[in-house]
Amino acid sequence: MAMIRTPTACLIIIGNEILSGRTQDKNLSWLAENLNLVGVKMVHARVIPDIEETIVSTVNECRAIYDYVFTTGGIGPTHDDITSACIAKAFGVPLLRHPEAERRLREHYDADTLNEARLRMANIPEGGILIDNPVSVAPGFQMENVFVMAGVPSIMQAMFDHLKERLTGGATTLSRSISVYLPEGTIAEGLADIQAQFPDVDIGSYPMIKDRILSTSLVFRSTDEPRLEQCFSAAQEMLATLNADIISSD
Amino acid sequence: MAMIRTPTACLIIIGNEILSGRTQDKNLSWLAENLNLVGVKMVHARVIPDIEETIVSTVNECRAIYDYVFTTGGIGPTHDDITSACIAKAFGVPLLRHPEAERRLREHYDADTLNEARLRMANIPEGGILIDNPVSVAPGFQMENVFVMAGVPSIMQAMFDHLKERLTGGATTLSRSISVYLPEGTIAEGLADIQAQFPDVDIGSYPMIKDRILSTSLVFRSTDEPRLEQCFSAAQEMLATLNADIISSD
Repeated sequence: MAMIRTPTACLIIIGNEILSGRTQDKNLSWLAENLNLVGVKMVHARVIPDIEETIVSTVNECRAIYDYVFTTGGIGPTHDDITSACIAKAFGVPLLRHPEAERRLREHYDADTLNEARLRMANIPEGGILIDNPVSVAPGFQMENVFVMAGVPSIMQAMFDHLKERLTGGATTLSRSISVYLPEGTIAEGLADIQAQFPDVDIGSYPMIKDRILSTSLVFRSTDEPRLEQCFSAAQEMLATLNADIISSD
Repeated sequence: MAMIRTPTACLIIIGNEILSGRTQDKNLSWLAENLNLVGVKMVHARVIPDIEETIVSTVNECRAIYDYVFTTGGIGPTHDDITSACIAKAFGVPLLRHPEAERRLREHYDADTLNEARLRMANIPEGGILIDNPVSVAPGFQMENVFVMAGVPSIMQAMFDHLKERLTGGATTLSRSISVYLPEGTIAEGLADIQAQFPDVDIGSYPMIKDRILSTSLVFRSTDEPRLEQCFSAAQEMLATLNADIISSD
């Protein structure tokens, strides 16, 4: 059987507010799940501050490694919104007022509210392809394999729904999971045997504390459904021999 | 006035479960806030998969750049817990059974529950200094400026409380914030003027949707309290001239 290669993605989260701990990022988990639905695998993420040289070098490093790079944050109208200018610099192109982006802003805002700060949101690196923003109009944009999106989750999600048709996906990763009231150490040996039998299934074991009991959540991931089901059945049998009380399974 | 340099920190989040979107990381924000309390600034974070070469190269890259590197995840007893072995490889030292770590595990577990999988949690890179784990015994460890911690938030937090006395902090960053029912575009020009007057204060502007109204949260950060208060007052005055309705302020 021919292996279908799954394209890789990297998310660059741009924003001092995430690094200071003030804001909890919610975009990574949403984007990872939604990329998987179109057959793209998130394999790396970075959180970086609003510093020009850091943004430029990170974007250039990541776009050379991963099939797709997504950025969130820093495309608003305020002084700390420097992402678009940094992307232009990373690609070595000028940042230009984009006529269609400007038209959308002029259509949305009254003449007296469309100040110079808001018009900055129509500045797009030369060659950038707009990404629609049905929530608050000001668009994101794509430069080659880099997709520049807003940081507000509802806007990011709407932008992703627009851009996802531009992505070429491979196989979708399927998953099964089971959580039990047993600590990892009790399961570890049986699980290692199953992993050895199913090297093509990615088996993750995650400790958690549930009802004050040290418990474990097991996740099985594969692009091959029959193999995934065989592996999951083997794990269920192994857990049954340990008399594991099941917390949940799906 | 002499500037006190604030040491920098980087967090490496190791785990497929974060990259798949299944688990929402909660350690970054907690660690960022608690590092700041001891005068260390989180300036970078990465989320990477459970792949040996990726862990080794990321740790080596980051420990050369940042004053402190923290890792979370991958130090349990199961087959996918490869962090300790990778840290040993990154430092070019063997992974050895640590007598004190083993003693703690033998004290905690009955002889028949202390299987070989659990004993793996006593394997520490040569030269590693243990980090206590009052929650579930198996320790983390420190290698030079790298602190290796568990991924479960309650265990990570307990480990950090133990290790934080080993950190040399600089000035603590203080912050003030105010959120208003005005979009960023309305505030942007006045805010840029204030940033120009206070280049030493880090002013962040974050759009949000509150009660279905496009709103803005402003955060002012500095290690210099009088300058921070002056800057915050200037912003309050600017917002008053815009008749901003205040959502919250602290």
